[in-house]
Amino acid sequence: MTDDTDLLPEGLEDRLPREAATTTRAMRSIQDVMHGHGYDRVLPPMIEFEKSLASRMAGIQSRRMFRFVDPSSLRMMALRSDFTPQIGRIAQGRLAGAARPLRLMYAGQVLTIKGDGLDPAREKLQCGAELIGADNVAAAIEILIVAIEALQAAGARSVSVDFTLPDLVDTLAAKAFPLEPGAIEAVRRELDTKDAGGLRDAGGEAYVPLIYATGDFDGAIEKLAAIDAGGALASRIAALREIAAAIAPTGARLTLDPSERHGFEYQSWFGFTLYAEGVRGLLGRGGTYRIAGANAGGEGEVATGFSLYPDALIDLIAQSEPLSDKVFLPLGHDREVAARLRSIGWRTAAALSEGDSAVSLGCSHTLDGGEVVALA
Amino acid sequence: MTDDTDLLPEGLEDRLPREAATTTRAMRSIQDVMHGHGYDRVLPPMIEFEKSLASRMAGIQSRRMFRFVDPSSLRMMALRSDFTPQIGRIAQGRLAGAARPLRLMYAGQVLTIKGDGLDPAREKLQCGAELIGADNVAAAIEILIVAIEALQAAGARSVSVDFTLPDLVDTLAAKAFPLEPGAIEAVRRELDTKDAGGLRDAGGEAYVPLIYATGDFDGAIEKLAAIDAGGALASRIAALREIAAAIAPTGARLTLDPSERHGFEYQSWFGFTLYAEGVRGLLGRGGTYRIAGANAGGEGEVATGFSLYPDALIDLIAQSEPLSDKVFLPLGHDREVAARLRSIGWRTAAALSEGDSAVSLGCSHTLDGGEVVALA
Repeated sequence: MTDDTDLLPEGLEDRLPREAATTTRAMRSIQDVMHGHGYDRVLPPMIEFEKSLASRMAGIQSRRMFRFVDPSSLRMMALRSDFTPQIGRIAQGRLAGAARPLRLMYAGQVLTIKGDGLDPAREKLQCGAELIGADNVAAAIEILIVAIEALQAAGARSVSVDFTLPDLVDTLAAKAFPLEPGAIEAVRRELDTKDAGGLRDAGGEAYVPLIYATGDFDGAIEKLAAIDAGGALASRIAALREIAAAIAPTGARLTLDPSERHGFEYQSWFGFTLYAEGVRGLLGRGGTYRIAGANAGGEGEVATGFSLYPDALIDLIAQSEPLSDKVFLPLGHDREVAARLRSIGWRTAAALSEGDSAVSLGCSHTLDGGEVVALA
Repeated sequence: MTDDTDLLPEGLEDRLPREAATTTRAMRSIQDVMHGHGYDRVLPPMIEFEKSLASRMAGIQSRRMFRFVDPSSLRMMALRSDFTPQIGRIAQGRLAGAARPLRLMYAGQVLTIKGDGLDPAREKLQCGAELIGADNVAAAIEILIVAIEALQAAGARSVSVDFTLPDLVDTLAAKAFPLEPGAIEAVRRELDTKDAGGLRDAGGEAYVPLIYATGDFDGAIEKLAAIDAGGALASRIAALREIAAAIAPTGARLTLDPSERHGFEYQSWFGFTLYAEGVRGLLGRGGTYRIAGANAGGEGEVATGFSLYPDALIDLIAQSEPLSDKVFLPLGHDREVAARLRSIGWRTAAALSEGDSAVSLGCSHTLDGGEVVALA
């Protein structure tokens, strides 16, 4: 037997029937939730000009993309590594004249030349929803509810959401705790590592309490509120509390890590990360942001959205996904009866020669004299 | 407004909400039919080693693929231009030990550096089913029924099927009408252009009646049967008649063009092309073939399958696809009522600010005091 693992490049793999069935079901469930909330799918191409994929969003690096020269235009093209810039391009382009808020969704594959961190995969599923033209609290609530419901519909259990305030340091530096020029970056770095000593050394003494305003939402938001920043954070805190209250019925567990910024390079005032029990790594992230573009003025158009990366969830649940029943159709079976069975939801597998049997075709049932009979 | 047609490379395009909704629905319908007949989906990666994509099937040319060096292995990779070699690789690799016949299906995108003929598209949808380990009449019948039902489920009307016998000239040359060495290619070429004079000049006088054995199946098969080839075609003719009779209940119109070979480079004894009313160009093709591979011995493993290219069908039906109803949810609506509406199949679109209205959000209905009310 040929060992196919030798034949596929590192970080790329086939999904075989069991995992593929779970993938199909989970991706449909996620899309059905987004569609139900009024999001319309768009289908951008797998490849386009590198320049177009790398613009509009900070934090998306074309050096992570597979790139090649287009023999037709002689310009550089790339495989998409993220759907979000493509959705931004559509919103700013052919849908620039569509009424706002504009609800768009997407689902498909993205590719990068290297996996990230512990995950060697270079091809991933990504699906998500973008609410273009709105970035208020109501938008954040809707996007979070859609994201959580989508994960739950796909099969995630015990979803948890970690809130962050991506522009927290900028806001505090501008309105409450001024920093020496050049110190902002150092303060951000020390907050990332939660190093109180380093933070003090960097001139960020006032920022130290942020390190402790993390963890379970109810406790952490109290600690954040206790920081006397002359009201600079009041509206943010009120917004987070309103969002937390609104998503409570989903049953998702909430945490807060207000200075977390990894992966939120293009987010504005609000960001979140999604996890689920038993699934290694993050399942998705989202938040408010601005789409740069000719049509959006200097500041860009506001938007709120999320992206899900369901591969790890699919791998987890594929193991326990039930296999569907299948009816064996013997040689010479009545085709009309078989068609009727399929029309009411049965799967069938027909014998094509004397050698085929219900067992060899993996069937749970057989068609016997017009009746479906379960096999022992 | 930015003109996005400038921003996308030639032959690549975005599908916007209406066309994307039709795409999603049609692709699901096609997959549901294949799944119902016992086919299991597999998900090969979008890219893999060029060598792997270009082997196993004649007629698949790596110079038509987007190719690039893998920075990790430093080997040439390519974007898939066809799913079929990937399915062959899986069948000969990780599924080499699975019971036969093995029913596999696929659905997704394929890309080529150039469009073909009149169609400039460089990205296409392809979906199909492969029955691996069987290439008898029963296999051909099943594959054709699945293909026709899949097209009908997607929305095709008046499907027609054109049968061909890809190895007809080889069979006749070997068993009935010998040709001078080197004349086979000339005879094939003249048959392609249906040039009786050219056929005679090429020494293929005996092949002239094949030119006229084309058109409506019932008439053409009579003409084919009338060719006295000493019984060399008898089993083929009987097989075609059996297939034709078995697929009659689908309502598909049948034609025969026994010497057609364009697009059947890797097919063996039976091939077919699928069309539908109002759809420009072919919608799919299929037939019997052999998968080359280490595991399959010198001759390769037998298989029967089809590929559909539903883009043109989707473009046609998207124009008449009904838009689904959508319920406007005013500011401050009851979230539980809204969730209940979605759970029974309604789509909703929520107001996020005072400026949002049922009209601006494209809604057909509104939620009014807990009731769904149709808008005039």
